[in-house]
Amino acid sequence: MLHLASETDPGWADYALAHLDEILVDHAHCEKKAASTALNLMFRYPDRSELLVPLSELAREELEHFEQALERLRERGVTFYRMTPSDYAGDLYRAIRKEEPLRLLDTLLVCSLIEARSCERMKLLSQALPEGVLKDWYVGLLASEARHHVGYVTLAEHYFPREQVKARLVELSEVEASVLTSGAAPRMHA
Amino acid sequence: MLHLASETDPGWADYALAHLDEILVDHAHCEKKAASTALNLMFRYPDRSELLVPLSELAREELEHFEQALERLRERGVTFYRMTPSDYAGDLYRAIRKEEPLRLLDTLLVCSLIEARSCERMKLLSQALPEGVLKDWYVGLLASEARHHVGYVTLAEHYFPREQVKARLVELSEVEASVLTSGAAPRMHA
Repeated sequence: MLHLASETDPGWADYALAHLDEILVDHAHCEKKAASTALNLMFRYPDRSELLVPLSELAREELEHFEQALERLRERGVTFYRMTPSDYAGDLYRAIRKEEPLRLLDTLLVCSLIEARSCERMKLLSQALPEGVLKDWYVGLLASEARHHVGYVTLAEHYFPREQVKARLVELSEVEASVLTSGAAPRMHA
Repeated sequence: MLHLASETDPGWADYALAHLDEILVDHAHCEKKAASTALNLMFRYPDRSELLVPLSELAREELEHFEQALERLRERGVTFYRMTPSDYAGDLYRAIRKEEPLRLLDTLLVCSLIEARSCERMKLLSQALPEGVLKDWYVGLLASEARHHVGYVTLAEHYFPREQVKARLVELSEVEASVLTSGAAPRMHA
């Protein structure tokens, strides 16, 4: 359902738990970046009117999650800090074709796959975490991430034939799996 | 209270009413741009932790207003379209000093003045509009814009001495008044 071509090694959750503060800071950055990506698409495609409201709603939700992530950090006494992102998103964006309208198709699908991987990783984290605020929060986020994944695919299907979307999603999911450098650093997508 | 150094010519409202669809499209773009500016500040100053939540909340509110502006356009049967922005914001941004931390101070105050001018213009529009959904909407927005103006000034006062903020706000308000090229095109800030 998440269209991922690989499964995260179950050991990732233990690694993440052992570096939980760092994972949370990275997670907060990811939410902010996700909002920014949605907003950038709104600027790039003002004439694609079907995109605007869904992307705006999505950006608002990501920002709400960013604020919640900061709250989780505050609860743990951790101050948010600047962090070098993993190569994951940059490597994945390189698979986006340059010419329109394929650039739009690929961008929507790359976004959908990042949301899918976030969903998968958050599920592992939520299962590994002990009872408490943080576990509850991750359980709550899962549904949103899955919804965002589907939302991006649905937007792609609005502008492109379903078969084309499906085929390209398979190709890009293989790229996604290949750029996921497992465990290079404690990151949501590394 | 809005710290503006000039008043908009009351004739602006009639001009805006005569080009209402264009004003509304521009207004929608302004809300999107305001969200983007707040988000960009969150990326530029991740270590200024007091900025993050207020800016994130502000960006969410601007996006909500953007969605509402699209709804107003839909009600009027107008499709949102790409629009060249007026020179206003670009001209105003040029007054921002390059070196930190003055760049932060100036950026916050420039943002506060754009919100103030929006507030002043929206008040004129709301007074000129006939009874109806659009008038009610503008009346509702006024309070937000005034709050955003104060919010940006308050953030500046968190990081800089109150006297410095006050003095620079006076200087920048004069720049703001001077770059407001009245009536060059039907725009919120022209």
